[in-house]
Amino acid sequence: MFEKILIANRGEIAVRIIRACREMGIKSVAVYSDADRESLHTQLADEAICIGPANSRESYLDITRVISAAVITKANAIHPGFGFLSENPTFAHACEDSNIILIGPSSEMIEAMGNKSRARKTMIEAGIPVVPGSDGIVKSIEEAKRIANDIGYPMIVKASSGGGGKGMRIILNEGELEKNFIMAQKEAKASFDDDAMYMERYIVNPSHIEFQILADNFGNTVHLGERDCSIQRRHQKIVEEAPSSRITPKLRKTMGDVAVKAAKSIKYRNAGTVEFLLEESGEFFFMEMNTRIQVEHPITEMITGIDLIKKQIEIAGGKPLNLKQKDIVLRGHSIECRINAENPSKGFRPSPGTIDYLHMPGGNGIRIDSAIYNGYTVPPLYDSMLAKLIVHGDTREDAIRKMNSALGEFVVSGIDTNIDFHMEIINQPDFISGNYNTSFIENIQGDKFVK
Amino acid sequence: MFEKILIANRGEIAVRIIRACREMGIKSVAVYSDADRESLHTQLADEAICIGPANSRESYLDITRVISAAVITKANAIHPGFGFLSENPTFAHACEDSNIILIGPSSEMIEAMGNKSRARKTMIEAGIPVVPGSDGIVKSIEEAKRIANDIGYPMIVKASSGGGGKGMRIILNEGELEKNFIMAQKEAKASFDDDAMYMERYIVNPSHIEFQILADNFGNTVHLGERDCSIQRRHQKIVEEAPSSRITPKLRKTMGDVAVKAAKSIKYRNAGTVEFLLEESGEFFFMEMNTRIQVEHPITEMITGIDLIKKQIEIAGGKPLNLKQKDIVLRGHSIECRINAENPSKGFRPSPGTIDYLHMPGGNGIRIDSAIYNGYTVPPLYDSMLAKLIVHGDTREDAIRKMNSALGEFVVSGIDTNIDFHMEIINQPDFISGNYNTSFIENIQGDKFVK
Repeated sequence: MFEKILIANRGEIAVRIIRACREMGIKSVAVYSDADRESLHTQLADEAICIGPANSRESYLDITRVISAAVITKANAIHPGFGFLSENPTFAHACEDSNIILIGPSSEMIEAMGNKSRARKTMIEAGIPVVPGSDGIVKSIEEAKRIANDIGYPMIVKASSGGGGKGMRIILNEGELEKNFIMAQKEAKASFDDDAMYMERYIVNPSHIEFQILADNFGNTVHLGERDCSIQRRHQKIVEEAPSSRITPKLRKTMGDVAVKAAKSIKYRNAGTVEFLLEESGEFFFMEMNTRIQVEHPITEMITGIDLIKKQIEIAGGKPLNLKQKDIVLRGHSIECRINAENPSKGFRPSPGTIDYLHMPGGNGIRIDSAIYNGYTVPPLYDSMLAKLIVHGDTREDAIRKMNSALGEFVVSGIDTNIDFHMEIINQPDFISGNYNTSFIENIQGDKFVK
Repeated sequence: MFEKILIANRGEIAVRIIRACREMGIKSVAVYSDADRESLHTQLADEAICIGPANSRESYLDITRVISAAVITKANAIHPGFGFLSENPTFAHACEDSNIILIGPSSEMIEAMGNKSRARKTMIEAGIPVVPGSDGIVKSIEEAKRIANDIGYPMIVKASSGGGGKGMRIILNEGELEKNFIMAQKEAKASFDDDAMYMERYIVNPSHIEFQILADNFGNTVHLGERDCSIQRRHQKIVEEAPSSRITPKLRKTMGDVAVKAAKSIKYRNAGTVEFLLEESGEFFFMEMNTRIQVEHPITEMITGIDLIKKQIEIAGGKPLNLKQKDIVLRGHSIECRINAENPSKGFRPSPGTIDYLHMPGGNGIRIDSAIYNGYTVPPLYDSMLAKLIVHGDTREDAIRKMNSALGEFVVSGIDTNIDFHMEIINQPDFISGNYNTSFIENIQGDKFVK
């Protein structure tokens, strides 16, 4: 196993990885920017090395500096965490070229899944269900009609160069097709000087369901069940839970098998996540594969008892996965709330600053992954996540009650947080019933937070 | 189930019970002394009622005041926690007389196990192995010789009125008997004006092994495995672990069956603990039964996934125990360190005062049960325990590493603590090998803490 691992990240995930290293008897090296001299990850690691100014581009995102830090400290491996360089194939190449093991998949796999149209093609070839669509540019209205007949309604036309909703139209039935297609095309031409369009099925109010994968270098690939990450605000996950109320044991088996097949089709190795859109009908479609550890990985750890960070390190170190699919048993229910430094009543404006008083909940079934402390100053430059509050209960009802109790005990003063917003979420009837999808946050009626 | 429970305790166990109530949808009432106005349990409960001055005798130990508080707040039940009134049969009677359910066994069972010689007799009658002994006063040296032949050497003679080592002699062989018996008798007469003596086998360096019992009102009694509580200083447990390195699956079954038999012999109900002395030979003897929840109950919760406080409440509320012995599976390994406000280098002198900085560890497999916070003033009058740091790992080695890592992150300033002493303990070769017994603390050689 590795003697020393450099953690190319900051905040709670850096602390999470440092703890795993310590528990495995591996030395850890933190890298930090000028803004993170006093950060917990800088203090907790066995060694810490400054890699540049506060601006991430010149520190956490600077491949040369990160690799140099690993070379200088004689680290055998780098754990990239999530975000920053974690899905950057150039970084993965640079590690390979420097004979440093990147704890994750190969640069090739990161590339294969990072390019969304290539990933889509690969999945179609492997027989994985993807959102039905045009598989490329739709050149004429005649072609559009033909394709629409294949993929069905509602569907969506999107400008190939589009973004921010421009050159995009939802089309509910054939009667709306011609007019809307042409309008979207014109808008695209006007906005991007490019009227290339593509089409795909519009999935109405899907659930965001993702399956955790572990795969070693010896062909062993398993899934660790799903996470329901449908509670999102502007595509940012806020609350995640495992297992999902939407998933029956039968559907879990079906989707899990598909997720494993997807991973195997690219000979994937290490931890990864296969994300699906799930329709109310039970039909599901491959969305993307994340080739890294996820923020919400702890809820899977809570219900499986498997430490995903340790498994990542072991797999990267060449250890075979000593797990068969049948060994993986899901126990109880886990929920994670992402506690952010932001003000929900002011449009979720970030709220950096000094935490002048902190008190975190504890007790049976309560886990907190964080990098904050009393007196810590949250810098304005990075992600606003302060802590992940994770609970584990026997049942979903039990977990919700635990979360309520724990949120009630959580005190952060000096900066604004979304703790009260989390309270609102988990006490909504649709959350309590488990009857929610990705439109949950938009749908909260009369909520003082959502404006 | 109960609508409202009064918690007749303070500190972390009061907080632990308040959390369980909240998670069960039951209202909680805290009682507090004048010294505990700012305590966490006072702040966290749904209601809080002052029951008297700082001195426990006039508050937490005052049966009338506690019962009055329950009557005034219309609590249906009282949870006594541990210590204070938890094993006081008069209190249990008072609850029964006031139609308040005491969450625990009946006054009769508390009495039956509280009187040590009566408990011993009951256990002998039930066929439970007890430490071989004289079963009463040894009147003459002739009788002493006869009994000594039965119980074997080494043995111990003790003054019936004794205490503090006076009137007590360890006797290694028959040659030492007459002289030592007479000397002990003389010392007893001089010290207590009573030369009544009894004799029992002297168990050399036993392990302190206790079995957790759960029993409902419908005759269902199960055990939840053992805890090894051999790491003690002056009979105070410091570090506990579950399972014990000393216990094979076969011995666990044997001792567990005996523990269940012991509980059934007195028709025990609710949570209880059967404590045994275990000799290196594998021979074990009933020591006593604790008719309450124990400080160290969380390590059992961690390896069984069963919430003991909730079970106590459910059983007291008349719910049948939905557990069979075969359903109870022990998973992984758990260790608890009792973090106390005391100075090990100054003879473990208590160190009350204000915590001016606090930072507690977190992350995967780390649980903290405590009632402290930044700025909290530890009063000098009560128990010195600040927090229970509990870890859960896949293996014992894993748990020890987690504990090392977590202790290293734990920061308490303003008062002295035994955190470094815990570091010393868990890094001793005998602790790491699991090869220890109740003489562990005395045996630490060259340790700067033990003087």
